[in-house]
Amino acid sequence: MKKQAREDLSSGERFSFEQIGIIRSCYPEKFGIPRQSGLVEEAEAEIILLPPYNRDEMVKGLEAFSHIWVHFIFHQADHWRSTIRPPGLGGKVRVGIFASRSPHRPNRLGMSAVLLKEIQKTPGGIALLVQGGDFLDKTPVVDVKPYLSYVDAIADASTGYSGRSIPPEKVVFTEETLCFCAEYRKKTGRKLQELIEQVLFQDPRPANQRGRKNSFGMMLWDVNVCWKVAGEGVEVVSIDVLKNVR
Amino acid sequence: MKKQAREDLSSGERFSFEQIGIIRSCYPEKFGIPRQSGLVEEAEAEIILLPPYNRDEMVKGLEAFSHIWVHFIFHQADHWRSTIRPPGLGGKVRVGIFASRSPHRPNRLGMSAVLLKEIQKTPGGIALLVQGGDFLDKTPVVDVKPYLSYVDAIADASTGYSGRSIPPEKVVFTEETLCFCAEYRKKTGRKLQELIEQVLFQDPRPANQRGRKNSFGMMLWDVNVCWKVAGEGVEVVSIDVLKNVR
Repeated sequence: MKKQAREDLSSGERFSFEQIGIIRSCYPEKFGIPRQSGLVEEAEAEIILLPPYNRDEMVKGLEAFSHIWVHFIFHQADHWRSTIRPPGLGGKVRVGIFASRSPHRPNRLGMSAVLLKEIQKTPGGIALLVQGGDFLDKTPVVDVKPYLSYVDAIADASTGYSGRSIPPEKVVFTEETLCFCAEYRKKTGRKLQELIEQVLFQDPRPANQRGRKNSFGMMLWDVNVCWKVAGEGVEVVSIDVLKNVR
Repeated sequence: MKKQAREDLSSGERFSFEQIGIIRSCYPEKFGIPRQSGLVEEAEAEIILLPPYNRDEMVKGLEAFSHIWVHFIFHQADHWRSTIRPPGLGGKVRVGIFASRSPHRPNRLGMSAVLLKEIQKTPGGIALLVQGGDFLDKTPVVDVKPYLSYVDAIADASTGYSGRSIPPEKVVFTEETLCFCAEYRKKTGRKLQELIEQVLFQDPRPANQRGRKNSFGMMLWDVNVCWKVAGEGVEVVSIDVLKNVR
């Protein structure tokens, strides 16, 4: 570290970021959200651009890209922490916040690469329909960029401790919950069964509750999904529509 | 776009971002900087963390990762623009700012994946030594994250118009400039010749000046490099040390 650099150490600036969009997603609450983007393909979300950033010309040419980066604010994260205990390490070992993708970071900046399915242009504005995101509903967006594989895709990067966790062997539905999913899809067009399967294959339980055998609840769209660990797999026990949601 | 979503359209929030670090790099000015990170491997930079974000524990475990994401502010960009003319399209076609990686974007947020060479811990703080960045010297940093190839590396993403541009066939040095590079390396340890070659192979000329045959100057570290187009290649004509820089 050079002398001149040291002199800069007290000169941290502040920058005002404006929200350019808002996300509507199938995850109304934190529990159930996959830990990284791209893992649950059925998870669709809409990025609705806000004025003055919702003019047609601002996304001109974006349709040429298959994937985009979404930069967002972890708006439900409270204060930042110096260290966290990542689930990939069983929740027991502490690592630095900058060695993690945890929401509890300075500036609460999140980023996800997602598949760009469609750019919807309406008189009211622009919505980007994306797939594979790990966004909480109502997440504020601060930037959208095209994904450039020739610089962003580093296939041989070594990823330290953060490998995928081992998924449950199977996800089983009761006859009732299967029926519910079929009817729900007829009514809303949403592939609820596939979404539940993909979310549960990620094992959304917090690391310190992996030993628990009782049941868990999680919200997806406007339904509450109740499930429990059964053998080496997971069983979906019941699904209920919540009132007053969206 | 749902009705409820439309109601949110007027509710753009502001977020205050704090600078967590500052970059010291070999690029004191914009001209010469490669358009994307990772293209010029010889370009090294230091990310110096600022208090209160420069505690050892905040980077604990980061050494396990080969690459990191650096989120920074394009601090020399002025106002944002709705559209820009990307050099990859010859500077003639306009695309939306969100369909580009241009600095002239809302919130001026930049990101680069870089190789993490070393974490330098000193009593005065922490510096991350990185390679392959496209950072202007004194760039403010707002976040550092580990690169996770299992979610970030999408090798088959289609990249629209932004392919690499065609490089010049060769970069030639005069005997004098070669000598300068050798002496400069002896004095400073910096591989100036390799850096110049890699930068010039990216053809740093603005798209609207590709036709120009006269000479160009660019600053790297504390030297001014003068070069010109010669046939299908590029010739490095002179190198001078600048006074009063760093």
